[in-house]
Amino acid sequence: MIIKDEIYGMIEFDELEKRIIDSAPFQRLRRIKQMSFTNLVYPGANHTRFEHSLGTAHLSGVIAERLGLDEDARKKVKLYGLLHDIGHTAFSHEGEAVLAPLIGDHEALGAERMKSGPVADILGENYRREEILGLGKGSEGQIISSDIGADRMDYLKRDALNTGVAYGVIDIDRIVHTLALEGGQLVIMEGGLEAAESLLVGRFMMFSAVYLHHTVRIATAMLGRAISHSLEDGTVIAGDFHELTDDDAITIMLRSRSAEPFVSGLLNRRLYKEVLTLSPSELRKRGDAAGIGRELGKKLGCEVLVDLPSRFTKAAGFGVKTDSGTRSINEMSDLVLSLERAGEARMKALVLAPPEQRETAGKAARALFDK
Amino acid sequence: MIIKDEIYGMIEFDELEKRIIDSAPFQRLRRIKQMSFTNLVYPGANHTRFEHSLGTAHLSGVIAERLGLDEDARKKVKLYGLLHDIGHTAFSHEGEAVLAPLIGDHEALGAERMKSGPVADILGENYRREEILGLGKGSEGQIISSDIGADRMDYLKRDALNTGVAYGVIDIDRIVHTLALEGGQLVIMEGGLEAAESLLVGRFMMFSAVYLHHTVRIATAMLGRAISHSLEDGTVIAGDFHELTDDDAITIMLRSRSAEPFVSGLLNRRLYKEVLTLSPSELRKRGDAAGIGRELGKKLGCEVLVDLPSRFTKAAGFGVKTDSGTRSINEMSDLVLSLERAGEARMKALVLAPPEQRETAGKAARALFDK
Amino acid sequence: MIIKDEIYGMIEFDELEKRIIDSAPFQRLRRIKQMSFTNLVYPGANHTRFEHSLGTAHLSGVIAERLGLDEDARKKVKLYGLLHDIGHTAFSHEGEAVLAPLIGDHEALGAERMKSGPVADILGENYRREEILGLGKGSEGQIISSDIGADRMDYLKRDALNTGVAYGVIDIDRIVHTLALEGGQLVIMEGGLEAAESLLVGRFMMFSAVYLHHTVRIATAMLGRAISHSLEDGTVIAGDFHELTDDDAITIMLRSRSAEPFVSGLLNRRLYKEVLTLSPSELRKRGDAAGIGRELGKKLGCEVLVDLPSRFTKAAGFGVKTDSGTRSINEMSDLVLSLERAGEARMKALVLAPPEQRETAGKAARALFDK
Amino acid sequence: MIIKDEIYGMIEFDELEKRIIDSAPFQRLRRIKQMSFTNLVYPGANHTRFEHSLGTAHLSGVIAERLGLDEDARKKVKLYGLLHDIGHTAFSHEGEAVLAPLIGDHEALGAERMKSGPVADILGENYRREEILGLGKGSEGQIISSDIGADRMDYLKRDALNTGVAYGVIDIDRIVHTLALEGGQLVIMEGGLEAAESLLVGRFMMFSAVYLHHTVRIATAMLGRAISHSLEDGTVIAGDFHELTDDDAITIMLRSRSAEPFVSGLLNRRLYKEVLTLSPSELRKRGDAAGIGRELGKKLGCEVLVDLPSRFTKAAGFGVKTDSGTRSINEMSDLVLSLERAGEARMKALVLAPPEQRETAGKAARALFDK
Repeated sequence: MIIKDEIYGMIEFDELEKRIIDSAPFQRLRRIKQMSFTNLVYPGANHTRFEHSLGTAHLSGVIAERLGLDEDARKKVKLYGLLHDIGHTAFSHEGEAVLAPLIGDHEALGAERMKSGPVADILGENYRREEILGLGKGSEGQIISSDIGADRMDYLKRDALNTGVAYGVIDIDRIVHTLALEGGQLVIMEGGLEAAESLLVGRFMMFSAVYLHHTVRIATAMLGRAISHSLEDGTVIAGDFHELTDDDAITIMLRSRSAEPFVSGLLNRRLYKEVLTLSPSELRKRGDAAGIGRELGKKLGCEVLVDLPSRFTKAAGFGVKTDSGTRSINEMSDLVLSLERAGEARMKALVLAPPEQRETAGKAARALFDK
Repeated sequence: MIIKDEIYGMIEFDELEKRIIDSAPFQRLRRIKQMSFTNLVYPGANHTRFEHSLGTAHLSGVIAERLGLDEDARKKVKLYGLLHDIGHTAFSHEGEAVLAPLIGDHEALGAERMKSGPVADILGENYRREEILGLGKGSEGQIISSDIGADRMDYLKRDALNTGVAYGVIDIDRIVHTLALEGGQLVIMEGGLEAAESLLVGRFMMFSAVYLHHTVRIATAMLGRAISHSLEDGTVIAGDFHELTDDDAITIMLRSRSAEPFVSGLLNRRLYKEVLTLSPSELRKRGDAAGIGRELGKKLGCEVLVDLPSRFTKAAGFGVKTDSGTRSINEMSDLVLSLERAGEARMKALVLAPPEQRETAGKAARALFDK
Repeated sequence: MIIKDEIYGMIEFDELEKRIIDSAPFQRLRRIKQMSFTNLVYPGANHTRFEHSLGTAHLSGVIAERLGLDEDARKKVKLYGLLHDIGHTAFSHEGEAVLAPLIGDHEALGAERMKSGPVADILGENYRREEILGLGKGSEGQIISSDIGADRMDYLKRDALNTGVAYGVIDIDRIVHTLALEGGQLVIMEGGLEAAESLLVGRFMMFSAVYLHHTVRIATAMLGRAISHSLEDGTVIAGDFHELTDDDAITIMLRSRSAEPFVSGLLNRRLYKEVLTLSPSELRKRGDAAGIGRELGKKLGCEVLVDLPSRFTKAAGFGVKTDSGTRSINEMSDLVLSLERAGEARMKALVLAPPEQRETAGKAARALFDK
Repeated sequence: MIIKDEIYGMIEFDELEKRIIDSAPFQRLRRIKQMSFTNLVYPGANHTRFEHSLGTAHLSGVIAERLGLDEDARKKVKLYGLLHDIGHTAFSHEGEAVLAPLIGDHEALGAERMKSGPVADILGENYRREEILGLGKGSEGQIISSDIGADRMDYLKRDALNTGVAYGVIDIDRIVHTLALEGGQLVIMEGGLEAAESLLVGRFMMFSAVYLHHTVRIATAMLGRAISHSLEDGTVIAGDFHELTDDDAITIMLRSRSAEPFVSGLLNRRLYKEVLTLSPSELRKRGDAAGIGRELGKKLGCEVLVDLPSRFTKAAGFGVKTDSGTRSINEMSDLVLSLERAGEARMKALVLAPPEQRETAGKAARALFDK
């Protein structure tokens, strides 16, 4: 099967891969957006986990071939690239903050789908159980999942293309040409240092301009609250999100009286407003995010959301292979090290309130923090 | 308000435009895909009428400025660019074949939305009734709606970008620089002849490779049948499609017993198969499409779909301004004339059957047509 | 050796290819522009035969692999892709009209370079004489040189990229996926018909907008006259052009008193002007181009150039492989057939005069042709 | 006059600008490459100062309009954008290290061209002398020449496009939308901070991967030596480089016996090799670069080049306009600050020797520095 991809052009899948792609759990990924409600800010961001999974599979296969893996290993790498997001709930990462503590993250859920159900059945005809359980593990898994792996390269480029933001335009081709496996670890050869730096800079810029764009964070906070409410009042149970698509979940949550205002707000772009911005430490001195939100909400007679990103971008953790051994990218590159510091300085806690209470909520929030 | 567009970069909207964009009927366009189920063939084709409407508004404004229109006229042109697709039902063009005979096409429905409801209210604060009724009419309307207008240029380029098909990559910039208004008609100056040819060739190639791709036609035929069934059994009424989004309509149609197999097939990519290809005249000699479908279906005990595209691309109808007067593009360009002939030769009627009855249906269809 | 190409990204060459690339005759291609004086119209058109040769080699290798050729054949195909333009004189095609009748065309001259000299020596260490003579011959040669071969695809895309003209943006990837060798001929499979049409349309549009752009033709006609003059007065001999670079030749021709005005005109963009446009048949009724130029020139006391393109684009000549045998693209595609007719209608003879004699020359030319 | 640009599409010039473009000093820029011998590493880097000057003029005009300058000011800004590189010698920046101390840098030489000669004559018909002397000065000059000005944005994007290196792909559109003039200084508004960071990161990466690529530095060092030799032996005088094109200068320098090996080496890509890499401080402890080169050369009986880049990228120096006043980008952005440190760590001195003496020169150089 040949599919036309926005990034790589014509990409090919063999019969086994085709059967997985045509299975219901994989077709469901067509209806899970890659970036959830980011399209409220960047209208072009309507691409889905389906396209990203196809792209990651293709790129994983290209890397595996480049690294000289044998045919069996190559096929397994590509297969895991295809399946690495099969476990995503509705709204993928944007719903995970609420859902993962209850039902596990998308990797755990994905492992389930590979153990039973239609995908598991197709895999089972071709691989032994221990082979299936081993997919995505070990050095082969790094081809997909590491900082310089296919998953990250694919989503950075695809998100950049669909948002129209130039920052994620990374030189995939150059990175692929300089990857190596060294002691079971995916590393980059010294000649690829600049390309790897560029990847990390691109990621930093995408976090700054897109993934942590304040309006995107507002939408995600509203979504999280909608999910919480509809779980609390029993409109839906957490496990259902594993089967629902984005739009299924929206339809269902609209039936919850407490979730409805948040869902409608998202659908009609009536979003909460930022009424105060704090450093995370200023916030923590005063209490935890949820508690502060409740306290302000009580005072104002409305729901107040306090959003605190758990992290900016993680420190990069891969090695660079030099003539004198493999060293960490953080040792090799001042630039990369500085990204981490710059990311921390950029982390802000946001106090959010309904638009009609913007003024009073701002006053109350500033009073609470003596600002 | 500034929005980042995939094609034009940063595009700007004034306060009135912003209020329309933020209204519920316009936000609904976020959930109407531009190309409906075309993403079954080109997975990247997830862009929506929302983005296309923003882009068309922007491009309309650029053309209006280029043509030297006064500020009032420029604003009206841009406004109509923004609103030109506000009347689309769920599934837009792909649903229109069934729905338009019942409730009117998207232009008629759009005119309704401009006469009453939230959009009309916003317009009414700024324009008199006869001005609103006049939007999109006359020479100004041609800036949006003609063969060389903003609507067509935007969707060709946007569809090309999101499908990854190169054919629609047209030189918008050059066309815009060579447009003129001549006796109330939007024409192209002779210096832009090649750019206009290129636009028409691009359109031809997009029709050939994308819009009339056989699998796209199959999906559209299945969708049409699903809509018909769910109307017939009263699951939904035609007027509702005017308010529904794509996914709303899917959810509802799944409740119709006769529509369900078609909807599920679309969702899980279990599509009808092409069992016979005919020229339109071969088909018509034997009867009308619907009747032949019924006849074959009866024989086989399943639903058979017969799909006949009403047209390939229409003949282009704009003028080219030369030193010796304005002449039709069809007179000026052998190439354009030949596209029409080539398009007709490419029109095929398709007989479609469920995958599990592919063989028997093929036999029956060939027997019916002595093939 | 890995080289970063504008089109394909990182492309690789083995040790033998590297030695050829590093040889003086190949390095000389860095100083032969791909499109000669086309940069007088499209300022970005400064790319060279060097880049095009590297790109053609790479693409030839990709096609050869796709077609399943064995390693020895693949290497030879790629080698010929690399060397296919090694015989170009200064100004490549733009000088050939004058030079080829005297010293042979670039293919004949290229064959010489492969028989003796540094390139021949490197080849000779690796291949037998008859193998070298066979490079570019037979079905393997078609991978580079046919209508759907690597040479044409590379130059269309590269010229489009560097001129900024969108028309040449062809879907190389799709064409490559649908090529086949059939009875020693490079053909396209039916599934690639649209991609092949698109290639031919792209070529047509590039001819129309770029290669036969009137100002480009004027520059080429002036160049041809400069070469003729500098040969006639013995400033240079035809064979020298085989060793000279573009700029070498310019420097030398400036020493010829009769060539100098044409060369200076090209360098400072003081170009001849078009004073009359005729159909080729109108021209031929009155005489041959050179004679008419002389006649007008005598009358006016200046040099008049009459430019008549020998052809628009040649008819395409490859086969399309269908279930019922291989048929010519011209039979299969109305569109392609029409391009040929449209091209002929577009061929114009130009009468050109120095800018300061534009008016009088126009009058004289119109008088001569009763216009 | 409308010209098709690789980056901006159709760009327009008025009659005055057209006359300047058509003047001989401006046409000469067609034969001064933007990146000199960088095409030895990136074969696509054949673009010229001509295209860059047109692009800078266009972009300057866009920024001036965006900033709301009046028509007279806008025209002057665009004019200076057009003329800002008119003073470049052959090989532009790559020759400047040797030539600027003797005849002034390209800005001083450009000012000359605006005071006398054909360009000055054209300007004089339209502007008073003090206006001409004022072009490029003051706040209007910053629109072209500052860190966030049109010159830099144009060359980063153009160089990225022509080398195929993704790093320079900056979001010009977003930067332009967030520029402001504040107290006579070009600043960026806080909303454009990320876009400005991205510009500086792009510049950093381009320096790292392209402008200071070791092979580019080798070619530049060889070129510098060739210029020095041909000046020393009187083959050419420094002032001549102001009139010569790249290829003129090459032709002339080939006549100098001492310069010839370096020029031939560049033409045939027989380049010096890196035999030792040092930190600048290690080098300076031992002496100055030229002296060390002579010392090693004497020992080895060949010319040794020691190359020490004077700087990586300069610290960025523009302001960011916030609600609480304008602050330096260096205060606002950890990331930008860190780029400076990272740049310094990346500066290396190179000891270079002819390929055939690679081994012995390496030994001698290591001995000299106890390595």
